[in-house]
Amino acid sequence: MSLIVQKYGGTSVASIACMMHVARKIKATQSAGHDVVVVVSAMGDETDRLEGLAFQITEQPMAREMDVLLATGEQVSIALLSMALQSIGCAAKSYTGFQVGIHTDTAHTRARIEHIEEAKIREDLERGFVVVVAGFQGIDANGNITTLGRGGSDTTAVALAATLKADECQIYTDVDGVYTADPRMVPDARRMPRVTFDEMLEMASLGAQVLQIRAVEFAGKYNVPLRVLSTFKEGSGTLITFEEKGMEQPIVSGLAFSREEAKLIIRGVPDKPGIAGQILGPISEAHIEVDMIIQNLGDDGNTDFTFTVHRRDYDRARAILEKIDKELNAKGILGDAKIAKVSLVGVGMRSHAGIASTMFEVLGKEGINIQLISTSEIKVSVVVDEKYLELGVRTLHEAFRLHEEPYEEDYEHRLRA
Amino acid sequence: MSLIVQKYGGTSVASIACMMHVARKIKATQSAGHDVVVVVSAMGDETDRLEGLAFQITEQPMAREMDVLLATGEQVSIALLSMALQSIGCAAKSYTGFQVGIHTDTAHTRARIEHIEEAKIREDLERGFVVVVAGFQGIDANGNITTLGRGGSDTTAVALAATLKADECQIYTDVDGVYTADPRMVPDARRMPRVTFDEMLEMASLGAQVLQIRAVEFAGKYNVPLRVLSTFKEGSGTLITFEEKGMEQPIVSGLAFSREEAKLIIRGVPDKPGIAGQILGPISEAHIEVDMIIQNLGDDGNTDFTFTVHRRDYDRARAILEKIDKELNAKGILGDAKIAKVSLVGVGMRSHAGIASTMFEVLGKEGINIQLISTSEIKVSVVVDEKYLELGVRTLHEAFRLHEEPYEEDYEHRLRA
Repeated sequence: MSLIVQKYGGTSVASIACMMHVARKIKATQSAGHDVVVVVSAMGDETDRLEGLAFQITEQPMAREMDVLLATGEQVSIALLSMALQSIGCAAKSYTGFQVGIHTDTAHTRARIEHIEEAKIREDLERGFVVVVAGFQGIDANGNITTLGRGGSDTTAVALAATLKADECQIYTDVDGVYTADPRMVPDARRMPRVTFDEMLEMASLGAQVLQIRAVEFAGKYNVPLRVLSTFKEGSGTLITFEEKGMEQPIVSGLAFSREEAKLIIRGVPDKPGIAGQILGPISEAHIEVDMIIQNLGDDGNTDFTFTVHRRDYDRARAILEKIDKELNAKGILGDAKIAKVSLVGVGMRSHAGIASTMFEVLGKEGINIQLISTSEIKVSVVVDEKYLELGVRTLHEAFRLHEEPYEEDYEHRLRA
Repeated sequence: MSLIVQKYGGTSVASIACMMHVARKIKATQSAGHDVVVVVSAMGDETDRLEGLAFQITEQPMAREMDVLLATGEQVSIALLSMALQSIGCAAKSYTGFQVGIHTDTAHTRARIEHIEEAKIREDLERGFVVVVAGFQGIDANGNITTLGRGGSDTTAVALAATLKADECQIYTDVDGVYTADPRMVPDARRMPRVTFDEMLEMASLGAQVLQIRAVEFAGKYNVPLRVLSTFKEGSGTLITFEEKGMEQPIVSGLAFSREEAKLIIRGVPDKPGIAGQILGPISEAHIEVDMIIQNLGDDGNTDFTFTVHRRDYDRARAILEKIDKELNAKGILGDAKIAKVSLVGVGMRSHAGIASTMFEVLGKEGINIQLISTSEIKVSVVVDEKYLELGVRTLHEAFRLHEEPYEEDYEHRLRA
């Protein structure tokens, strides 16, 4: 007998009809001989509705009370899902965060799980119950209700799977797996049967928003086999695995992109130690997250300093830079809020040179100018004008033959074919 | 410094605007120098909405999960009310049932409070916080969430007031006190500045649905001064007091009525020991509550057995009686679902004879036939045809001069005047 942790997101339980469908899936899993622990999110837009009520009262609701408020969303879901299971003859029992004993730190609205008690869950599983746990919530050392932040239910599921040493943690969502590229943009994008944790982390942080990044990190850290599946479509989804030695890895696994980027350049700043901190310090103090950072030495001994931020932070970041520009007596600010980032991801890149140059060549042939480049061991990201995003993504997807099954032949071979 | 427990019902916090109004009232109470503990119900029709979701899943939701579901209503209210208080500069902290430590038995959906912890509340009050507690909910010895049944927030407030030895427990609702009769029916009905616990219990059980009856019992038992006030209208409401020796009591305090009554008669049953049990046993097993019970000896040595039930149970009760009629070989069932009950209530009746006969005389003069009579030490109830309800109530209200201030003269004097 194996133990499976299943997590169902908000769209999977958005209505009573969805809830019944989910209950039948859970019952089928149990009937197949598995112990099942289910983690469930708030129904549909319930979290937004609750937040809306709070913001009608005050622009800055106390974080402690926000957590008390938002935690009700998942509590409603566990009660209804347990009823749904019982109504189809499947014994089930619900647990809120405090009832399980999901202990977190005290960082309201973005708490981190420290420890999960397993005694009650084990006991109920032995008695044949499906155990239904509220995602997203926990309790701190003083008995205060905490929440883990948006998408926290994925983290709850992975943490439970790690604690219970589950055989698999299945994340049910409204897509049926991780694709080589967004299928809405690339019609022949292919579902990847498996992807490594490292690749998934790069993809998640690059905008393929299937799984919460903290959940992927957590699963990687605690060796939890993680699978993404569709609630509404049968299939085996995508398994997120560890790299196995000797296993043939595709060089490029997938293609991620983000349209939510903006670029800022401060020109002609003195090229001296500490300059990056002087520029990025005030940006960071304003809680603006910086993604790519590039520094070019100009011909006059001064330097141009370029970085990207989320598009929603563009105006604020630019205003901060204008001040810094004056303080440093620099040569002015350039900016562009209409850029996009495209990335190739693949653990095979570690052992294959030439991916980046092939990428640049392919884009160049289509007349797409590359504005910024950033690389890591397993990815190459480029920033291009937003209007070239679709063209760039589709061209790269085809050039690297991501629509074809990998494994049987290597990438150089494919490119030659 | 005194300690006040205030309870606000669902209509008092039905919207964010209402919530802000309640917050200002609470702040005013604290500013007047009191420690304040607030108990709050679910917003408006939230409990109905949640129940509706459950009944979409199954006609018989498990009671344990129903409690998990319904408890979220009050949890939303405490969070929002605490935010509202904080937003107007009043430090506040919310507590769910499990966070306070409101310990109950395990009777889901109708649990009884066994014990309340006071340490955390005392500590927060000393630090200057308004403490906002979720009504209606508690936790059993195994950490399961329980609820106290409809109207349970009143009970929470009284139990907290008893535990904390509060100076007063104020129940804020949408009426501004307890009236000598329903003002919608009797325009010159008068708000009673005070009423005794015994009178309030009779009134509450007779249909004057201002306070939950369990809360009144609880307050009486633990000597909690209880006051009913309006959330939306200034005033001192009605104080529910203990009878004080030597205090002049009005003979008739008020007039209660209920339209939700139905009468059933099984005719010609053998007049032998145990017959009442044979008839009422199956009714009780069907969870039908019986109110008045009257047995008349007929001239043939057989007896007619009459009782009243809530009108919604009339058809079910009648079906059960039809079976009993056959088993006992009795002379058939009569029934009437169009009756109403009118009651005079007053602790002064204990020491005054003749109230009942005056009541019958007054009704008789108006041509109203009395179908059933039932009396206790402090009330007289009669059942009449429903169509005479308004006439009966108004006539009695006037005859006993309930629109006039009591205390200064006794009832015989008034009747003569």
